[in-house]
Amino acid sequence: MLARYFPILDWGRSYSLRHLESDLVAAVIVTIMLIPQSLAYALLAGLPPEYGLYASIAPLVLYAIFGTSRTLAVGPVAVASLMTAAAVGNLAQQGTPEYVAAAIALAFLSGIMLIVMGFLRLGFLANFLSHPVISGFITASAIIIAAGQIQNLSGIPLSGHNLLEIVVSFWRNADAVNWPTLVIGLAATGFLFAARKWIKPGLSRIGLPARLADLVAKLAPIMAIVVTTLAVHRMGLDAAGVSVVGEIPNVLPSPSLPPLDPGLWLQIAIPALLLSIVGYVETISVAQTLAAKRRQRIDPDQELIALGAANVGSAISAGFPVTGGFSRSVVNYEAGAQTPAAGAFTAVGIALATVFLTPLLFFLPKATLGATIVVAVLSLVDFKTIRTTWAYSKADFTAVIATIVLTLAAGVEAGLVAGVVISLFLYLKRTSRPHFAIVGRVPGSEHFRNILRHKVETLPAVLAIRVDESLYFPNARFLEDTINARVAADPAVRHVVLMCSAVNFIDTSALESLEMINARLGDAGIQLHLSEVKGPVMDRLERSHLLHELTGEVFFSQMDAHRALSADAPLPPEGDTDAKAAQ
Amino acid sequence: MLARYFPILDWGRSYSLRHLESDLVAAVIVTIMLIPQSLAYALLAGLPPEYGLYASIAPLVLYAIFGTSRTLAVGPVAVASLMTAAAVGNLAQQGTPEYVAAAIALAFLSGIMLIVMGFLRLGFLANFLSHPVISGFITASAIIIAAGQIQNLSGIPLSGHNLLEIVVSFWRNADAVNWPTLVIGLAATGFLFAARKWIKPGLSRIGLPARLADLVAKLAPIMAIVVTTLAVHRMGLDAAGVSVVGEIPNVLPSPSLPPLDPGLWLQIAIPALLLSIVGYVETISVAQTLAAKRRQRIDPDQELIALGAANVGSAISAGFPVTGGFSRSVVNYEAGAQTPAAGAFTAVGIALATVFLTPLLFFLPKATLGATIVVAVLSLVDFKTIRTTWAYSKADFTAVIATIVLTLAAGVEAGLVAGVVISLFLYLKRTSRPHFAIVGRVPGSEHFRNILRHKVETLPAVLAIRVDESLYFPNARFLEDTINARVAADPAVRHVVLMCSAVNFIDTSALESLEMINARLGDAGIQLHLSEVKGPVMDRLERSHLLHELTGEVFFSQMDAHRALSADAPLPPEGDTDAKAAQ
Repeated sequence: MLARYFPILDWGRSYSLRHLESDLVAAVIVTIMLIPQSLAYALLAGLPPEYGLYASIAPLVLYAIFGTSRTLAVGPVAVASLMTAAAVGNLAQQGTPEYVAAAIALAFLSGIMLIVMGFLRLGFLANFLSHPVISGFITASAIIIAAGQIQNLSGIPLSGHNLLEIVVSFWRNADAVNWPTLVIGLAATGFLFAARKWIKPGLSRIGLPARLADLVAKLAPIMAIVVTTLAVHRMGLDAAGVSVVGEIPNVLPSPSLPPLDPGLWLQIAIPALLLSIVGYVETISVAQTLAAKRRQRIDPDQELIALGAANVGSAISAGFPVTGGFSRSVVNYEAGAQTPAAGAFTAVGIALATVFLTPLLFFLPKATLGATIVVAVLSLVDFKTIRTTWAYSKADFTAVIATIVLTLAAGVEAGLVAGVVISLFLYLKRTSRPHFAIVGRVPGSEHFRNILRHKVETLPAVLAIRVDESLYFPNARFLEDTINARVAADPAVRHVVLMCSAVNFIDTSALESLEMINARLGDAGIQLHLSEVKGPVMDRLERSHLLHELTGEVFFSQMDAHRALSADAPLPPEGDTDAKAAQ
Repeated sequence: MLARYFPILDWGRSYSLRHLESDLVAAVIVTIMLIPQSLAYALLAGLPPEYGLYASIAPLVLYAIFGTSRTLAVGPVAVASLMTAAAVGNLAQQGTPEYVAAAIALAFLSGIMLIVMGFLRLGFLANFLSHPVISGFITASAIIIAAGQIQNLSGIPLSGHNLLEIVVSFWRNADAVNWPTLVIGLAATGFLFAARKWIKPGLSRIGLPARLADLVAKLAPIMAIVVTTLAVHRMGLDAAGVSVVGEIPNVLPSPSLPPLDPGLWLQIAIPALLLSIVGYVETISVAQTLAAKRRQRIDPDQELIALGAANVGSAISAGFPVTGGFSRSVVNYEAGAQTPAAGAFTAVGIALATVFLTPLLFFLPKATLGATIVVAVLSLVDFKTIRTTWAYSKADFTAVIATIVLTLAAGVEAGLVAGVVISLFLYLKRTSRPHFAIVGRVPGSEHFRNILRHKVETLPAVLAIRVDESLYFPNARFLEDTINARVAADPAVRHVVLMCSAVNFIDTSALESLEMINARLGDAGIQLHLSEVKGPVMDRLERSHLLHELTGEVFFSQMDAHRALSADAPLPPEGDTDAKAAQ
């Protein structure tokens, strides 16, 4: 029981020296990768860079205690940072203490929501986000993030949380470009792209072992930081207008609870919920993918609690919202991390860096951090899904395009909500018109098939309908309309048989529709029968009035119904059967 | 084609003298019933009584042209009038021209929405209202309406659009009771209840023909009006503080378009949408019920257009929102109406009454109209559904209770929206965890059944899963979680077979989940196979990458899969099978 909520009790018991060694190696590599990312994503969230480091300590320790994935690495990520900036930017001015306080409160509230969802087992809420909507949302977010980084890469002041606003402010301020900044920005971006695309294969080709080539490629961001920081320092470029990180306090933040401000919490409630769901979807996808590779098991409800604890921990240690990151988790996995302890060791690494390395970052140009962000997020842009969705499903294509367009034009929150609403709308539209078939008997067999697809025998006085869906309120009216229309169209019908082989559930709305159908058919002198009702459905029906009031019978199989009703209304001669089948 | 949008062209062609006779008789009876109801529901909507008459002329003519039901009678109804009062009461003070203008604009906008929904075939939007939510909403609305009529029945001034507000204002003003009003109110209410319960059976018992007894009972409201009007006039009770209808202009309103005020329209957009959906659900239910009795067919999409036209017509002739009414439609049906022409004749009757009878209504006490309303709405209160829902489905019970409590406490709009949201939430929760079974072969047969319910043979290296639901985004993650957990739990598994016999559709999210499952299983050295994929599902899959990347095969039947995979992994000895089956 305790191990369910504290998975550390499970894996901690068998922790060995071999695990320690693997986890330490992985932690070193992830730490090196996480330092520039943390600084950059804090900038993206509109916060001073040190807050990225704060968000990469406590959350990692807490995830190590509560998480069920062995290799997931949490921390600041691009999309969540953009969402933070969008949510907090509406409430306070960047650079003010109110802005920082709101970002911390957002992490806290989002963490609480995740924990509550975990205890209430509400992980299914994440299902409201369909894959096309997530894909469209992330693509559009990545484009907004990359566009926003033009500020860091060129010195042109930009504002806005959607593409329209950013483009407008770029247009207005384009003459404010700072040339040294632009040179650093372009050079760093070019170098990081090259590192990603060519350095690793190139090093492998000249004979370096694959693992070493990989490590060198991963060191590229650190190399970019070192080179550009030295360049700014030596050439005095900060005096020429190159924006630098400046002084970072080299102490760890002391833990404190965020202020209890109900007005603020109400204002950030919706953004916190959206952030929780997006963060959870990202976390669980990464965790599932990595767990499956080693045939490990993760617990989706416990992941909610773990991610929630990580966010609460982030808030208490002055950090902003965190999520399981895809690239850093893969690095952690590939570097050989065996247990969540690797995450805790990474936290120690980041804490040491906060205390000892930050003085060295004074001259680090923000352009380099901007380049790190651009290169990271452009890999999130996914136009392929748009193409494949177009080929596969026009309804899903509509949802992707609407999500992308609305996110770009109106910002992350509006885009995400619109995507969810549109996909739910399309889903309910489809589900409210389930597939159904008028069925007849395959001659000489006990099989009953669609009269439109097969040559089957039907009885002229019998209308046999198979609905291929559970009967729920979204399709209850459809059932009424369909049976009503069919019966009105064929005056010979005296029996309606509802074949329930595909019906797994009947809710109260559908039950009332069936009672209504039964009563209406009764008024018109037609009997309603059921056939092939599944056990659990029958159990429930027995608690209702329908079975008492049913004008017809409940047949075990459609064949039984056919046999009983053909006694009442004998089979027509062959010719008539064909005519029916050809309808 | 034209007849699709103008059903009058269809039934009008075969209109005969016999139809005319039946329709005229029905029209006279419905007119007599509709006069007091129109006046009363206008009062309920917070409007002067003549507006009820205005809403009972043009809408009836327009429904006769556009409607597909032969017997539906439209006009002002209780719940829609309450919703009108709630929506308009937020914007303007009762008794002001702005209030009247807003009520008219509400009818207009709601009519436009219905027409647009009709052309776009969005009738399925009404499915968002599950039966328990509708039932709870109508019960709570009826209670609010009845409580609000205490003002007319007793002279105690009340305010508010929910039960809480009404009770509070009753508590504050209870000493303002007007005794003559209370006497008239109680007498009229008692008389109308008695007429409904006892007069008809009583008259039948003393030998009156059933039809005549029925007619006398239907005349009860008119008798109450005549008697109480005379009493007020003779005894000078209006001077004693009995509130009377007063002067009603005895001219018909001249047609005019409501003012085009975008600000106002934006404010009433949500109420107009809710009103449209509630009105449509009521209309379509009545129309279906009556059509089925005579095996007639109605067209749900055309009904949207007809109800929309009726509302636009109401607005243009200074009326407020209208709906198909249950009791008056049943009266129309039972009085023998054969075609929608009966409605047009009723409209003529109401127009004549507006011109010639209104001077006689000066001394009509509002208490009598209040009694009419109370007696009409209390028949809508339905506690039986609460009981049956409790027995049948706890989830649906939750939705009913929440809808009732929220409607009573926070008003019709909040209650309705909450009901929709709760039922959608519960639906998505259920649908996101579909029924699934691990299946094995029934020995000696080609049938595959749930290993938990049947004694079946399984192959130790094969995990065969049957999901009893289409694969959609709400359950895509469930599929991933389930397969991942099962495979992690059983290290012997080398093949996963997904049996798709119950899968009618696979959307993009589920497709991507399947691709993800395929890739993850591939990484773990496990093959993914599909079996019993339906034709339309297969057609769509062929447009995707899944089939190319699938590590396993697509088998026509589960038996084919079983045969092929048992060659790869032979059947275990009997004992092992039993162990599996007993899991």
